[in-house]
Amino acid sequence: MSTAATVSLYTFDTLSLQLGGQLGPVTLAYETWGTLNAEGDNAILITHALTGSSHAHDANQPNDSRIAWWNPLIGPGKLFDTSRYYVICSNILGSCYGSTGPSSLDSATGRPYGMRFPVVTIRDMVHAQRLLVEYLGIHQLAMVAGGSIGGQQALEWAVIYPEVVRKAIVIAATAAITAQAIAFSEVERQAIMADPQWQGGNYAPGEGPTTGIAIARMLAMITYQSEEAMELRFARKPARATLQKTIIPPSGTDDLGGRFDVEGYLYYQGNALARRFDANSYLYLSRAMDLYDVSEGWPSLEAALSRIRSKVLFVGIRSDFLFPAAHVRWLAEKVRSLGGDATYVELDSPHGHDAFLKEWEQMTNALNHIKE
Amino acid sequence: MSTAATVSLYTFDTLSLQLGGQLGPVTLAYETWGTLNAEGDNAILITHALTGSSHAHDANQPNDSRIAWWNPLIGPGKLFDTSRYYVICSNILGSCYGSTGPSSLDSATGRPYGMRFPVVTIRDMVHAQRLLVEYLGIHQLAMVAGGSIGGQQALEWAVIYPEVVRKAIVIAATAAITAQAIAFSEVERQAIMADPQWQGGNYAPGEGPTTGIAIARMLAMITYQSEEAMELRFARKPARATLQKTIIPPSGTDDLGGRFDVEGYLYYQGNALARRFDANSYLYLSRAMDLYDVSEGWPSLEAALSRIRSKVLFVGIRSDFLFPAAHVRWLAEKVRSLGGDATYVELDSPHGHDAFLKEWEQMTNALNHIKE
Repeated sequence: MSTAATVSLYTFDTLSLQLGGQLGPVTLAYETWGTLNAEGDNAILITHALTGSSHAHDANQPNDSRIAWWNPLIGPGKLFDTSRYYVICSNILGSCYGSTGPSSLDSATGRPYGMRFPVVTIRDMVHAQRLLVEYLGIHQLAMVAGGSIGGQQALEWAVIYPEVVRKAIVIAATAAITAQAIAFSEVERQAIMADPQWQGGNYAPGEGPTTGIAIARMLAMITYQSEEAMELRFARKPARATLQKTIIPPSGTDDLGGRFDVEGYLYYQGNALARRFDANSYLYLSRAMDLYDVSEGWPSLEAALSRIRSKVLFVGIRSDFLFPAAHVRWLAEKVRSLGGDATYVELDSPHGHDAFLKEWEQMTNALNHIKE
Repeated sequence: MSTAATVSLYTFDTLSLQLGGQLGPVTLAYETWGTLNAEGDNAILITHALTGSSHAHDANQPNDSRIAWWNPLIGPGKLFDTSRYYVICSNILGSCYGSTGPSSLDSATGRPYGMRFPVVTIRDMVHAQRLLVEYLGIHQLAMVAGGSIGGQQALEWAVIYPEVVRKAIVIAATAAITAQAIAFSEVERQAIMADPQWQGGNYAPGEGPTTGIAIARMLAMITYQSEEAMELRFARKPARATLQKTIIPPSGTDDLGGRFDVEGYLYYQGNALARRFDANSYLYLSRAMDLYDVSEGWPSLEAALSRIRSKVLFVGIRSDFLFPAAHVRWLAEKVRSLGGDATYVELDSPHGHDAFLKEWEQMTNALNHIKE
């Protein structure tokens, strides 16, 4: 059975953007599992990571995270229990998995937006999700949960719609990212935009900067893991000879003095993203992460965080250097010091930022802190 | 007075390479300060970092590290005292500042080597330095000192020429680099080789992959610093408007939703390296760092380290994530456990890997641990 058949589309006319201007029409692609109750208050909104999609769960092929990214956490009797909750995941504004983004056709020109797409923010993504949630007849969200850029959205939901969100789970996300994280992100974007196939963003569908985005992904994969995790998995092992022939580096060049296993792994991951993800979407979504600051538009950070009425679980990851655990903990303590109901839990994982997509047992234990 | 006038050249016929084959003729560019004594045993060899040159000191413009990279540590009465010692620094094999490297003319073809240059190793660099040291009439080195790839060389000197080296200072270098460091390094090389101007390494002098090497340098600069240092200096400050006009990103594209100060800084550093450094040299030298394993060619790591007869000072940097301090300390303890005379000192600096090129007071205090 095709998993694509379960994706629905919701289109609305226009969205006012945080940095000015309007975007429209706007489509959000989304999937749901479970049933909304008569009160319209048993919905859980799941927010995905940078290159993710609405396919957080697959009811036909449950448990396997290669099929759907939070599959082990979603389903009947699971942490996000589809026998009790109406679970929703929508592809975020700016992405390329069915929702409006740079690869969508601009109705004004009949051509893809490309770099004429406006800069969108986490707040814009949440505003769009809010319209979807209303459309689905949801009066209150039992929970919003996500990691990384999804965690930024969960936090933003709790701040801008305090009356709508009963609980929020903010994983591996902070009040604003560090200079170092912005720096890595910008190297990734430069690699994409330096690829001649990028053509100022005006590439034909399927003919984008595959080399550039593969290099960007190589770097991103390093930042999603940790020195410890890479040492455990790769250390200084050479790549297997068979893989040296079948996995080609993004630049297409010969190896220089052999190939380490970690290099072959990164080529593979880079090439895989190049086949599945739109390069312009990558630019816009990673920029939205850089630009996110929960205090933006409020008198102060305290003013922003004081708005939260939900019970919030903050989850940090010991080995995460992109969103350091200390920053997540600091944010939880800040919310608590302002009278908020915030809990902090740390995943004791070597897997870095990506642990929320790998450590199923620890994630289940951690997220149980916020269940009834 | 031109500083270039002080650079000397030494050429020898041939060098047998660690990974096989011969290279020749080989030229090393070098500078010296101070006077060799009659016994030929008061020489200090300084080994430079990845994109460095022989210009560690400038007798005409002392102290300023922008003029010469270890200027504050070298000179009469300084840590490396040119009134007592004969201080030497040679541009390493494979580099582009006067020594033989990929941009040198291959005498067999009359054209630059490009990627026909053989893969050279840290051991090859040290073998070449050994020939220079002999040529200069030095019987014993009072000290070999360097950081990063220079630290790898200092360690290699102590292992392969134990009878020649009385003292060694190994700064921010380890027995072998981590999978994560190899991974960063390979992203940098892919960025260079993906640039169409690289042309398989056959670019004309001055027409190389300036975009690719600028992107590589942007990434390298992140790895040479630390989250802490970047937060102290840049945090989330926007770039100054004037700089947004004068500093162009490597890809030449417009800013997406403004520019952070850290981004402008990285563009500047990237473009600066693109103007001064040969891209092919970057590939070969960074690869030599990846390939370095002090145990290579010996029965075991212990067998290699047991050869050391010198007094060795190992210097780690608290915030270095490219060469973690814990790995430097581990190496020092390993040498000591094998009966070697090893001391470990840690720079308590937020400046990451680059601290050995910035923290002059801490460096002086640390290196004083090994002075008579």
